[in-house]
Amino acid sequence: MTKNVSNNFLNRLPRYLKILIQLKNDGIEYVNSKTLASLMGTNDEQVKKDLQIVSNNPGRPKIGRSIDELISDIEDFLGYNDETDAVIVGAGKLGNALLNYSGFAAQGINIRAGFDNDRFKIGKTINGKLIYDINELKTVLPTLNAKIAIITTPASVANDVAKLLVEAGIEAIWNFSQSTIIVGNDVIVENVDLASSLAVLSHRLKEKQNEK
Amino acid sequence: MTKNVSNNFLNRLPRYLKILIQLKNDGIEYVNSKTLASLMGTNDEQVKKDLQIVSNNPGRPKIGRSIDELISDIEDFLGYNDETDAVIVGAGKLGNALLNYSGFAAQGINIRAGFDNDRFKIGKTINGKLIYDINELKTVLPTLNAKIAIITTPASVANDVAKLLVEAGIEAIWNFSQSTIIVGNDVIVENVDLASSLAVLSHRLKEKQNEK
Repeated sequence: MTKNVSNNFLNRLPRYLKILIQLKNDGIEYVNSKTLASLMGTNDEQVKKDLQIVSNNPGRPKIGRSIDELISDIEDFLGYNDETDAVIVGAGKLGNALLNYSGFAAQGINIRAGFDNDRFKIGKTINGKLIYDINELKTVLPTLNAKIAIITTPASVANDVAKLLVEAGIEAIWNFSQSTIIVGNDVIVENVDLASSLAVLSHRLKEKQNEK
Repeated sequence: MTKNVSNNFLNRLPRYLKILIQLKNDGIEYVNSKTLASLMGTNDEQVKKDLQIVSNNPGRPKIGRSIDELISDIEDFLGYNDETDAVIVGAGKLGNALLNYSGFAAQGINIRAGFDNDRFKIGKTINGKLIYDINELKTVLPTLNAKIAIITTPASVANDVAKLLVEAGIEAIWNFSQSTIIVGNDVIVENVDLASSLAVLSHRLKEKQNEK
């Protein structure tokens, strides 16, 4: 596998996938890089370069690449076909929403359980997933085989939680809290900041309304 | 109000807010820019510049700025104190999770209803919010007073939906679909791409496991 690919490249792959799946659903079997480039809003060279990284099969002249094969190659590359176990730490509003959300399964993410420090939540289930005591993280996490932790705690405790997770052997953190997570380089951290995104939207809307 | 502020600046504001609310909860009443800079992981100059944009009160020498006042100024600046009505278009897995999520209320976003094209969903309620027929968008949207639409449809239909929304008078789109939304400059678009973020995390994890 080619290593050290860029985040921008990885960000494009789910969009390739969506487009390819749509073409497949429309009954199309082959696609060339020119068509894909047009659908992606990019150029031929970038598509060729991108697909070379994920697929060994260059396709056939005039016919193009097999859509089925490309879908399978991209999914493999992104690890969507390997089921990866995950836990959610913080069973508040956002944690609850994500525990109830089943859409990550298509990307190979299997949410096994939640953790919280609230004794009214511990021992309960959300969408069939047990909420464990955060203090039991170190003993429970290895039994769940979880590689990914999704942090949905308040920002104020997110780093304490991340520290516990790393001690318990977690390999990757998907951080939905508003705190910057500081962990060693051997732990993968990827951030989603909904509040920041909404702050931009909200202020731009206010600006616009003030103009009127 | 100062206009044309950068997205980076707007992205920092929710983090200032979190820190200020935490200080307030700890019983602290005043803060200076040096302390805030350290908590934000930035420098004094940036904090001073940022706060000058949101607040008219420079604070008092030696004492600093009133935390209560700063919180209120930032919330005003971001429009969190004006309640803004929103709708969710696409009542699938992600739409469902967001309809059930009550956390946006703290940011002044009031989700009023959902829209979908699935006749099994239309007329039902999710978390007390009615799901309307997408074909009724033009007549229903004005009655809901919704300024923001959250798009959680499949990528394949996201732009058709965006076009309908603009025709129905929507002012801002928070796009959770994987499609790039193309609308006129007078409509605000802000994107959240969970699938791309997860793709990065997932592939980095796979790389790491292959190293072993």
